[in-house]
Amino acid sequence: MSDDLTRNQIDDVPDGFVPLPWHRGFGRLVGPLFEKRNEQGLTRGFRVGEHHTNGMMRAHGGMVMTFADLAWGGAVERDDDTWWVTIRLVCDFLSGAEHGAWVEGRGEIISQVDGIHTVEGKIWTEDKLLMTGTGVFKIIERRA
Amino acid sequence: MSDDLTRNQIDDVPDGFVPLPWHRGFGRLVGPLFEKRNEQGLTRGFRVGEHHTNGMMRAHGGMVMTFADLAWGGAVERDDDTWWVTIRLVCDFLSGAEHGAWVEGRGEIISQVDGIHTVEGKIWTEDKLLMTGTGVFKIIERRA
Repeated sequence: MSDDLTRNQIDDVPDGFVPLPWHRGFGRLVGPLFEKRNEQGLTRGFRVGEHHTNGMMRAHGGMVMTFADLAWGGAVERDDDTWWVTIRLVCDFLSGAEHGAWVEGRGEIISQVDGIHTVEGKIWTEDKLLMTGTGVFKIIERRA
Repeated sequence: MSDDLTRNQIDDVPDGFVPLPWHRGFGRLVGPLFEKRNEQGLTRGFRVGEHHTNGMMRAHGGMVMTFADLAWGGAVERDDDTWWVTIRLVCDFLSGAEHGAWVEGRGEIISQVDGIHTVEGKIWTEDKLLMTGTGVFKIIERRA
């Protein structure tokens, strides 16, 4: 995949983040993605590569929403083996992430009723908020 | 890009659809995407390839939202050179699209105030509705 960041930039992942092991499908396509779990919960992150950009050389809205789904939905993961589906996602686009920027996102569960989790989420770079929104997620049985 | 559809399946695009000419960035990554313009307006489409799928071998939610952004935002395009940004997208996930399915989407402008367009959108396959939602889009000046 073409990418005009240098290897050093690609490898420049903040301390504590580890790569997500998604080796196929859309999760692989939009990667690499990273995550960090600490007392604040699960934070996911990615660096904006050329393959994530729109015509303005910022992270494409589709990529930011894809990341929102994964970062906010991550709030319902009890372990590495929790499967969930998205029921609704509301995304407010506040500003853009430039090519090369490190982007992070996290969600907080604000309601949990009958297996339906409502999550408030944010996505940001070091210096600005990129997106806020709400996700509704349902945990499902792991499938073969 | 790996894809275990046969060449015939990949090339199986319904009459009237032409490929979108996106040759770089995220638009290229998630392609190929297609569109058809007729008396109903602009309809966009894609066939679910392996690179679009989640762990259940259906179109990943991130891909469906990316497509929603492009299919519903397309409703505000006056010509091939209209640039727009997304302000808000609300996506209700109704059902999944299997690997190999042909997916279409279209938006309808329901409000246009001070350059802000509100669009009601749908995404479907031949036999079922996959997603409904609302997009808020703003037309911007073309940038260098």
